[in-house]
Amino acid sequence: MDEFELIAQLTPGLPSNATVICGAGDDCALLDLGAPDRWALFKTDAVVEGIHFLPDTPPEKVGHKALARALSDVAAMAGTPTAALVTLGLPRNFDPARVAAMYRGINALAAAAEVAVVGGETTTNPERIMISVSLLGWVPRGRALLRSGARVGDALFVSGELGGAMAGRHLDFTPRLAEARWLADHCEVHALMDISDGLAGDLRHILHASRVGAELLEDAIPISRAARQRAREHPDAKPALHAALTDGEDFELLFTVPGREAVKVLDGWKREFPETRLSCIGRITAEPGLRLRDRRGTQPLEWHGYAHFA
Amino acid sequence: MDEFELIAQLTPGLPSNATVICGAGDDCALLDLGAPDRWALFKTDAVVEGIHFLPDTPPEKVGHKALARALSDVAAMAGTPTAALVTLGLPRNFDPARVAAMYRGINALAAAAEVAVVGGETTTNPERIMISVSLLGWVPRGRALLRSGARVGDALFVSGELGGAMAGRHLDFTPRLAEARWLADHCEVHALMDISDGLAGDLRHILHASRVGAELLEDAIPISRAARQRAREHPDAKPALHAALTDGEDFELLFTVPGREAVKVLDGWKREFPETRLSCIGRITAEPGLRLRDRRGTQPLEWHGYAHFA
Repeated sequence: MDEFELIAQLTPGLPSNATVICGAGDDCALLDLGAPDRWALFKTDAVVEGIHFLPDTPPEKVGHKALARALSDVAAMAGTPTAALVTLGLPRNFDPARVAAMYRGINALAAAAEVAVVGGETTTNPERIMISVSLLGWVPRGRALLRSGARVGDALFVSGELGGAMAGRHLDFTPRLAEARWLADHCEVHALMDISDGLAGDLRHILHASRVGAELLEDAIPISRAARQRAREHPDAKPALHAALTDGEDFELLFTVPGREAVKVLDGWKREFPETRLSCIGRITAEPGLRLRDRRGTQPLEWHGYAHFA
Repeated sequence: MDEFELIAQLTPGLPSNATVICGAGDDCALLDLGAPDRWALFKTDAVVEGIHFLPDTPPEKVGHKALARALSDVAAMAGTPTAALVTLGLPRNFDPARVAAMYRGINALAAAAEVAVVGGETTTNPERIMISVSLLGWVPRGRALLRSGARVGDALFVSGELGGAMAGRHLDFTPRLAEARWLADHCEVHALMDISDGLAGDLRHILHASRVGAELLEDAIPISRAARQRAREHPDAKPALHAALTDGEDFELLFTVPGREAVKVLDGWKREFPETRLSCIGRITAEPGLRLRDRRGTQPLEWHGYAHFA
């Protein structure tokens, strides 16, 4: 059983109450906590030594990544983060200097994003360090951007470049908070999420939630230099396109807008974020499933994203 | 370095912002998220296999305990819990039936407490299961009960009975949510917290935060039957009083009220919660430190609570 099968089995039985606008299944939970002009966002994300970082990863970068992943989920709702709790699982013989350095990474990113770190917990995890970040944020009331809003005819966009993030970018990426809020304020975005497990996997969440399909244009997929380099230098590595579609840890924005808005979005983005690539990579279709079009024609895309436990 | 030294080192540098009423250092963080009549409570708590439960612990009870611990922290602010996220660290070969049973334990308690479970995360923790619960709650605006409010002359109270919780009670205790809200609504409570690491350790947090001392009456400490039985049957076990003061996992309420209110509190509690013991165990003093009075006189109490990593 993989992560997604487990979640699919557990989700239907979860208790709810009147505060819940949107529970499990989107990038963050969406709650009405009584603020007249806002809905709250609520999210947790964990990194584990040996899985998401290594014993010799610079500890400031580990801390940065731990918080940045959760911030990316708030960006994925076009939200603003406000407060974080940090749960640290530590071996009994932990190195206090290393833990302090992890906190420096967390605190520096939190300060830059105007997020308060309001405590947390330390507990024992004998074999490896685990950092779980719990995050609160908000969106203007009624204005969260969900996975479920994609419509037939929408153009599909992705920020940045995909694949090969584990070569380095996964440790120092900047969550796309400003870009997502700009999109929400200036464009008619129908669906938004962040890519953490690979485009080919994560796009399926939008398709499933929105009950639509999609066609990707092979030539339009923005493949990162790291993915190209790895494919060139390691004969056994995935081809670069495969890496761009299935590597995890991109933390880029994936969103849809009406087809007629596509040029306006590209132009506005280029003015606002001239150093960050934005690519129109395909379109939303009534035909279900995910397809890839190359020069020879259109084929079902069989690849999926990174699956934990798989 | 133990848990408390580590936290003391990390806490001063944490970034803050205008939403923070009370950050690290109390049972929950206290935030102003814009609701006109409420402040938000925010808390995480984790349980780890081999530390807080064992591989053969009934999985429903593991789930119950994971959520109950966090609920106890909301009770410790006299709050009402609203929504939880569950982060699951799982070995790759996890047993789906066991995980589903843990969720049944979480969901049953959540439903009873009217808490929505709004998602969470699964990740890999190769050697052992970890469940981290992140919890949101609320208190009426301006009415949280903190650790820092104890005053000289206050009477010191504890609910229930202490010590020996690991013999069973730690797996099926009911968080004292109703009792804490009753206290906040009907009594002039100055300081409130829950006991999770042993009275002798946790009371020091109230003393430190309130800049006062305390004197405990040995004869008044409510020692649990489990602690007495263990002391009787195991010659190497802690004496029962020692267990009551230093065993962890009690999850009882510890609070102070003005001395003149003590009888009224005892009477009201007895009417409202006739099946739950309430004990007046001592008083708050101007003299700093923690002392224990027995028939021979008053001595400094050297024992501390349970310390992780110690």
